[in-house]
Amino acid sequence: MAKPKKQPRPKAVTPKGFRDYFGQEVTQRTEMLRAIADVYHRYGFDALESSAVETVEALGKFLPDVDRPNEGVFAWQEFDEGGNGDWMALRYDLTAPLARVYAQHRNDLPTPYRRYAMGPVWRNEKPGPGRYRQFYQCDADTVGTASMAADAEICAMLADTLETVGIPRGDYVIRLNNRKILNGILELTFGKVKLGKLEGSKEENAKLQAVWDRNVEEAILRTMDKHDKVGDQGVRELLGPGRRDESGAFIEGWSRSAEEIDVVLSFLNSRKENNQQTLDGLYKLVEGSEIGRQGVNELKSICALLEAQGYEGNRIVVDPSVVRGLGYYTGPVYEAELTFEIFDEKGRKRQFGSVAGGGRYDDLVKRFTGQEVPATGISIGVDRLLAALREKGRISAQAKGPVVVTVMDRDRMADYQAMVAELRNAGIRAEVYLGNPKNFGNQLKYADKRNSPIAVIEGGDEKANGIVQIKDLILGAKIAESATLEEWKERPSQFEVPRGDLVAKVREILDSQG
Amino acid sequence: MAKPKKQPRPKAVTPKGFRDYFGQEVTQRTEMLRAIADVYHRYGFDALESSAVETVEALGKFLPDVDRPNEGVFAWQEFDEGGNGDWMALRYDLTAPLARVYAQHRNDLPTPYRRYAMGPVWRNEKPGPGRYRQFYQCDADTVGTASMAADAEICAMLADTLETVGIPRGDYVIRLNNRKILNGILELTFGKVKLGKLEGSKEENAKLQAVWDRNVEEAILRTMDKHDKVGDQGVRELLGPGRRDESGAFIEGWSRSAEEIDVVLSFLNSRKENNQQTLDGLYKLVEGSEIGRQGVNELKSICALLEAQGYEGNRIVVDPSVVRGLGYYTGPVYEAELTFEIFDEKGRKRQFGSVAGGGRYDDLVKRFTGQEVPATGISIGVDRLLAALREKGRISAQAKGPVVVTVMDRDRMADYQAMVAELRNAGIRAEVYLGNPKNFGNQLKYADKRNSPIAVIEGGDEKANGIVQIKDLILGAKIAESATLEEWKERPSQFEVPRGDLVAKVREILDSQG
Repeated sequence: MAKPKKQPRPKAVTPKGFRDYFGQEVTQRTEMLRAIADVYHRYGFDALESSAVETVEALGKFLPDVDRPNEGVFAWQEFDEGGNGDWMALRYDLTAPLARVYAQHRNDLPTPYRRYAMGPVWRNEKPGPGRYRQFYQCDADTVGTASMAADAEICAMLADTLETVGIPRGDYVIRLNNRKILNGILELTFGKVKLGKLEGSKEENAKLQAVWDRNVEEAILRTMDKHDKVGDQGVRELLGPGRRDESGAFIEGWSRSAEEIDVVLSFLNSRKENNQQTLDGLYKLVEGSEIGRQGVNELKSICALLEAQGYEGNRIVVDPSVVRGLGYYTGPVYEAELTFEIFDEKGRKRQFGSVAGGGRYDDLVKRFTGQEVPATGISIGVDRLLAALREKGRISAQAKGPVVVTVMDRDRMADYQAMVAELRNAGIRAEVYLGNPKNFGNQLKYADKRNSPIAVIEGGDEKANGIVQIKDLILGAKIAESATLEEWKERPSQFEVPRGDLVAKVREILDSQG
Repeated sequence: MAKPKKQPRPKAVTPKGFRDYFGQEVTQRTEMLRAIADVYHRYGFDALESSAVETVEALGKFLPDVDRPNEGVFAWQEFDEGGNGDWMALRYDLTAPLARVYAQHRNDLPTPYRRYAMGPVWRNEKPGPGRYRQFYQCDADTVGTASMAADAEICAMLADTLETVGIPRGDYVIRLNNRKILNGILELTFGKVKLGKLEGSKEENAKLQAVWDRNVEEAILRTMDKHDKVGDQGVRELLGPGRRDESGAFIEGWSRSAEEIDVVLSFLNSRKENNQQTLDGLYKLVEGSEIGRQGVNELKSICALLEAQGYEGNRIVVDPSVVRGLGYYTGPVYEAELTFEIFDEKGRKRQFGSVAGGGRYDDLVKRFTGQEVPATGISIGVDRLLAALREKGRISAQAKGPVVVTVMDRDRMADYQAMVAELRNAGIRAEVYLGNPKNFGNQLKYADKRNSPIAVIEGGDEKANGIVQIKDLILGAKIAESATLEEWKERPSQFEVPRGDLVAKVREILDSQG
């Protein structure tokens, strides 16, 4: 009989692009999500947790071909006898599931429907440094109202949220823009630029013109997005004759006229000293376009509502250079930016940047129901916000571990368990050492690895005398760094107290450690 | 030109076996998980959030064939050019990922490693009523120690957890058993039963005997699990000559002798008045087997440690009829049962039953590293525990909605927003009606759908007089049920107060509603 082949041992690794989160990484995020949920809840938003798995059909956008689903999502086919099972996929954001949920349950949900959602999403993309295929999103959306009061409310809530989690006023700004203003500009300026004489039928020419218009629109958005890097001159070149970049490579231009490019630049540079002046300037820029005027008026309403509630113009700023999302959204867009400076990987100072963004989109459930339902919402980048708080020292990178009760006498485990029970009942995090107690050094090494603030020791002598030894491990580590041998021998970080004073003394030391 | 085919609209449904959770379903679970995490944390357990996606290789157990993965998990193949991409799958529990994480990071983790994890897991199983393919697990495990103090600690923590989330002492019991005692019984009794004379080679016969032994073992476990339904006589028949069930169908027996079956029944029925007596009886039963004695002694240590900490014998009970998990675990097993009665779907009274279970298993990371690492842990059925709290009325099934500020004058939206801002700043959940305000009836219907406790009204007259109307919607609904027309006309549920008293009056009404 042939021996069965030995299976090789499996590798203990996550799939590429996935990672695990330990201890404080988990609890700090949980704590932040709870604080955010509190604010959302106070604003009348209801929690929604949709399933992580959706039909590919409902997710849309990413339709699988027979052999394999398109990239972008993780998808698989449900097994059935004929091999014709449905395709399922992991959600790639929290908006597509909201659309499905709203279409499915719209008769039971209130209108307007304010909901928040927080949880992981998955992207089937090439992973990179700091770029994972599973990450958290934290969204709030209002579905079913076109009122600008909904947009203003989202902006106010975003500001409240940032302050609640620990970003003080002055360290953030919420920047506002409106896709409709850009549409007005396109209509007034680029709308007039027709392709030259075309040789096809009227229908074919119209189609070509439409494709061209869309290309120009996208090119303008992409170029606007580069404005902070390439400056006015760069935009002139990219939209005009083309541009040679630092590496010497030549990027084809879009051959737009100087007048057209002037309009784009006026738009980009139209942020003035205050919102009123910015809005007046924008109004002049798009005065000839109905959609453009509408866009400016929408921002005016939002600003008026926010100011009436005490959100001043230095917290919420109309800024036409906000491009992110302009391609996706249909009305107002918002972006929360942290304005304090940090040092990047290369040691250069830069602003921390964006931690949240959102805006208005009006075709949320149309795919499902045929009806247009207006919606507006925000998504907070939870992991970036956590990183910001760590940068600012608002949350510590290192967690305090539990008090460790050491085991001096294996047979008196019940005594040690009773000690930790007392400590826990007093609300103090505590544990007994559960490894092999033979080597006491290992117990202290363990306490060190656990980042324990305090170790408790009760050997036979202590037991007989009714006392315990309590070691302040944090003070001990400080002394070890700088003390002379004499100082060290005095062990000012070790205290002998009656067994009955255990809890009180531990609390006193914990308080002194801050 | 052929018209492009119209795509049919996608269906707005979750995949079969998945569901969405709304509002309070989400927040109550979050709240419970937070409370559980607090207890776990106080016991020195650290949070771990592993990735939802694992390599199929690391998950083990479920190896995919080329055409499709085995049932049990949702799995898919990572795309690569040659079609040889790795298989990935959604985790089906939190223990397999713990094994992978511990094997991967064991040099950085403390030993013993206490960790807790909470989150969704996915099962590719046929869904049924109340049986979903995504559900929450909430685990705590101690890895790297064989000490019974670890098992005792988990039992104590489980008791504390149940009381913390709202199950009072007396309404739960934690039942203990030990796989080693059963092994002792198998060794003493069934181990002696050899198959008759076999015709193959010595090797082949040994293999047959091993298969037979395993079958008998499984049959005994399965039969023990039916004891509470079929009673002693049923067990006698199932392990002996076979049994005719209620429907008249005949179930083959296992032809064990009366003496053998007696031992199984003594084991099952050996729970006595208190743990001491139960343990003494068990000791006599397995006295001749070393593994059996070890099993009893382990339970003795656990009970002694727990009693020393004040967990009396009526909270934590040695009960040899606990079978669940005996097949999977290698040492002590524990199960938390809620003992209060509820009415089942058919209106019959029954005990609520199990909400958590766990035990000791010793081959956690062996697959990865070749080393045996002892571990013990518990898994809480969060959704069952939530259901239990709802049954007991400890958490309400219906959430209170936000205060709704109605819109009487579309142009004064800023006034209404200012009101909700005041209410929120006072910590009161509040929102402005954001739908079309034309029809006031719709606004009240909306408040009703939101389950609002209070509606605030400020029309032009009120504004002019500096007052607001505040409707107590809960009192209003009560009055509407029973009041005469006269009473109703007096509107004792509606209050007119100065605008400046808005927050105070709203709070007063909320307090009166309880």
